[in-house]
Amino acid sequence: MDGFSLAPFGPTPHPFNDKKSAMNQSKSKNNPSVLLWGKHVVQAVLHNPDRHIECLYTTSTHPEPLFNTQRCPIRVVTTDQLVQWLPRGAVHQGVAVRTSPLNTPDVGELDPKKGMVLILDGIVDPHNVGALWRSAAVFGASALIVTKNNCPPLDGVVSKTACGASELIPCISVSNLVRAMETLKTRGFFCVGLAEEGAIPLENLDLWPLALVIGSEGVGLRRLTRQCCDALVSISSAGAFSTLNASVAGAIALQKGLQIGKTQR
Amino acid sequence: MDGFSLAPFGPTPHPFNDKKSAMNQSKSKNNPSVLLWGKHVVQAVLHNPDRHIECLYTTSTHPEPLFNTQRCPIRVVTTDQLVQWLPRGAVHQGVAVRTSPLNTPDVGELDPKKGMVLILDGIVDPHNVGALWRSAAVFGASALIVTKNNCPPLDGVVSKTACGASELIPCISVSNLVRAMETLKTRGFFCVGLAEEGAIPLENLDLWPLALVIGSEGVGLRRLTRQCCDALVSISSAGAFSTLNASVAGAIALQKGLQIGKTQR
Repeated sequence: MDGFSLAPFGPTPHPFNDKKSAMNQSKSKNNPSVLLWGKHVVQAVLHNPDRHIECLYTTSTHPEPLFNTQRCPIRVVTTDQLVQWLPRGAVHQGVAVRTSPLNTPDVGELDPKKGMVLILDGIVDPHNVGALWRSAAVFGASALIVTKNNCPPLDGVVSKTACGASELIPCISVSNLVRAMETLKTRGFFCVGLAEEGAIPLENLDLWPLALVIGSEGVGLRRLTRQCCDALVSISSAGAFSTLNASVAGAIALQKGLQIGKTQR
Repeated sequence: MDGFSLAPFGPTPHPFNDKKSAMNQSKSKNNPSVLLWGKHVVQAVLHNPDRHIECLYTTSTHPEPLFNTQRCPIRVVTTDQLVQWLPRGAVHQGVAVRTSPLNTPDVGELDPKKGMVLILDGIVDPHNVGALWRSAAVFGASALIVTKNNCPPLDGVVSKTACGASELIPCISVSNLVRAMETLKTRGFFCVGLAEEGAIPLENLDLWPLALVIGSEGVGLRRLTRQCCDALVSISSAGAFSTLNASVAGAIALQKGLQIGKTQR
């Protein structure tokens, strides 16, 4: 790292195109740096002692005090540069940060005493994944579990939508979801899937500790995931129109989980 | 209208650029036709007897039977044409429909016996508005109320996200939200606002019939809206991180509303 330096407006290399980051990338091909953006996210990243911060990019020569600028070098960039680096339509609010990814625990290390776990079975919309991460943190889940092959990248849009939750609870990517669920069961978790045809109304659920499983919007839970669940619950609707957005259904189940946890702990 | 005609691939005028629709537009400047897209939405529109269907656009020469094709002319178009007509990134699934907007009741006509009302105070993200419309329909609200000056257009992205809910419950645009809330109160509704600092935990709420008021993500409820509420309720979180997405918070409140309604009706 090049220490604390407030660079003037001018040619700033692309975050992943300067020599140093190229070196870093080659050193850890399986673990590359990520670029995150938006005020809430950057603030949460800077306050997370587990993050190695590589560079803070800001469009302001006087960054707000909320950014703990002692931790990393700052580069002042133009809005045009940020727009070029970030996905189209990214709401960057004038700040981005390049940081190492976080280490995540193994599924077998998750402790049922530390709260629920939320499992996403094939949710591919990054906004839904981010919103569910956010709700999981709000309602006291201790981790999010996603499938490696069927989940959007966890940086960028997912982190932005998670609104800082990515710094509070880990997201564990697993190759084999059923194996992860079996591991959770041996740790004492009840795997409870959310499904429209679930026999148990969510309001009657009283299992604890919970590993809640949410399927994708189109397909729902996959067959093997469903078979591995200890119970399937459904959210009651007022009538025939019962199709909830996945992130909304997940949040409602998480809120119920928080209530169950309060009474059973 | 030009009756039932299955046009071949070829030059199809822009939905709002051919003579007929230009005439329609000039006849009802304040009430122009709208273009809606996506399988769920188009299907719901075609099944809604209150809709005057002007034209169905499809990329398939053999549209699925789910589209009640006897009701309107069909034009077969190319995917490129649809992409040109629709906002960038629109998930059209090969179908769009040009239709008249729906008539909406006045706020004073809303009947507390027909269920809750959901009020949006300045939510500008069309995905949030659409998601809340969808959740309102799932949990049995009888109408959505939005502010004229501070709400995205209700066609297009909002309708697509609402996933057909726009055909089930009306969305009423009002100029003066406080006046609308006062009208609802005279009709017997309790206006209950959702606010992080709300004194009553949502789980303790037992007012009925409900007019739930959701503020914008950034600002929350405006001062006058807040003052007009009969009660302010909050959603309990597990810890200090308590910032829920507006559409998630609204859905959780609506689900609670459905439960209250079941016990009190």
